[in-house]
Amino acid sequence: MNIQEIAQSFTIDKSIPVPLYYQFKKALKERIQDGTFQVGDQIPTENEFCEALDISRPTIRQALKELINEGLLTRRKPLGTFVSQPKIDSYFFEQLASFTDEMKMLGLTPSTKLLSIQKEEASIEIQQALQLKDDTVLHLSRLRFANGEPMVIVDTYLPYSMFLNLEQEDFEQNSLYALLERKYHCIIQSVHRTIEATLATDEMAKLLNIPKHSAICTTTTTSYNQNDVPIEYSIAQYRGDRNKFSLKLVRK
Amino acid sequence: MNIQEIAQSFTIDKSIPVPLYYQFKKALKERIQDGTFQVGDQIPTENEFCEALDISRPTIRQALKELINEGLLTRRKPLGTFVSQPKIDSYFFEQLASFTDEMKMLGLTPSTKLLSIQKEEASIEIQQALQLKDDTVLHLSRLRFANGEPMVIVDTYLPYSMFLNLEQEDFEQNSLYALLERKYHCIIQSVHRTIEATLATDEMAKLLNIPKHSAICTTTTTSYNQNDVPIEYSIAQYRGDRNKFSLKLVRK
Repeated sequence: MNIQEIAQSFTIDKSIPVPLYYQFKKALKERIQDGTFQVGDQIPTENEFCEALDISRPTIRQALKELINEGLLTRRKPLGTFVSQPKIDSYFFEQLASFTDEMKMLGLTPSTKLLSIQKEEASIEIQQALQLKDDTVLHLSRLRFANGEPMVIVDTYLPYSMFLNLEQEDFEQNSLYALLERKYHCIIQSVHRTIEATLATDEMAKLLNIPKHSAICTTTTTSYNQNDVPIEYSIAQYRGDRNKFSLKLVRK
Repeated sequence: MNIQEIAQSFTIDKSIPVPLYYQFKKALKERIQDGTFQVGDQIPTENEFCEALDISRPTIRQALKELINEGLLTRRKPLGTFVSQPKIDSYFFEQLASFTDEMKMLGLTPSTKLLSIQKEEASIEIQQALQLKDDTVLHLSRLRFANGEPMVIVDTYLPYSMFLNLEQEDFEQNSLYALLERKYHCIIQSVHRTIEATLATDEMAKLLNIPKHSAICTTTTTSYNQNDVPIEYSIAQYRGDRNKFSLKLVRK
């Protein structure tokens, strides 16, 4: 389809009191949802939309910016603007699974880059969550990928005295939960998890390869073993443009 | 405590390779967690910290900015920077409850402002979610408050033909779910919910009284009745600085 045909499929009515940017945004969203534009397709430029629809450039830009924020479009400089892959829809809020297992269940290939691993003194927040007697923790920082694309930064804190020599393991090849189970006979039986929306710090943006101040889903997890002893505290920073979380709730 | 005493409680070590902004941020966070600074307290100004700790102003500013983003601090111009109220920690992801009931359970007073209510043609997304035969929906837009503070914008879409005359009800005084049950004998039995981190549009920022491009928790819910028929589709935009969601998961 050329830009004229595309423009004709946009029903924009300048006589109604609905803001033009909103009408344009809605129309473009529907052209993505009905498959006119498919995943990976490049959409027309701001200029092309301006001319074909006779709408001002700031109006077009505002709509595109919001659709980029919502994760429906991706800007790849200097190439142009493309329809995004759908967000990875995972069930970390419905079932207890490791990142590795969850990605495999979704048909994606997980991989991990170890950012740092060190023994350190726990902050008050971590001491409280882990109910620590001595305050030394093993702090593991990992960047995790799905199909080679960076998805989440995970900072994990474990009571140091409980998992001696754990720092010698290969965390790029092994799942932490599998290691805890195999080497320490420690099974995670339950977790308490919170989720918040935050903004990426400059460092997060760099690691996740996203624009500064992008939206981030921050999840904080305290995991408990079979005896209800807290054994892991972790903070995961998921890029907002590529992740969403689903769950089903039933009235009891 | 004066600024000199506060500064002495900050252990900042310029000889180690940890960024100063990070050391300062961690120290300030701990002074909030250990109660040196309490909810509602004003913290020292950027200038006061600069002088007392001999750290540059951009460094102090970066740390404060991140703590504001994380919701630990709130800037109230022109007064200064204050320790925030803790986020409202709700369980929408663990149990099926209305906003009204959830806020009451948390000891907060809910209230609602009706932004708009209208009959409209459903978008493709909504048609699919509600499995509509005809595509007319009642669109209800509400701003919801906890203790008078705006918390969430909720856009609700209901099949028009299923709830005739619903638009005549008073949605500022009544809970939607209570109305559906009382007037239409319709009980929500299960919901499918997704959560995403996004950025506030200018309109959302204005309604929620937060800075532009703040973090937003967007939840999308499809609700089903006793016969598993979808009866409600809603999009809720929670301000990220005042809300978090918790749940507990147990290995099955």
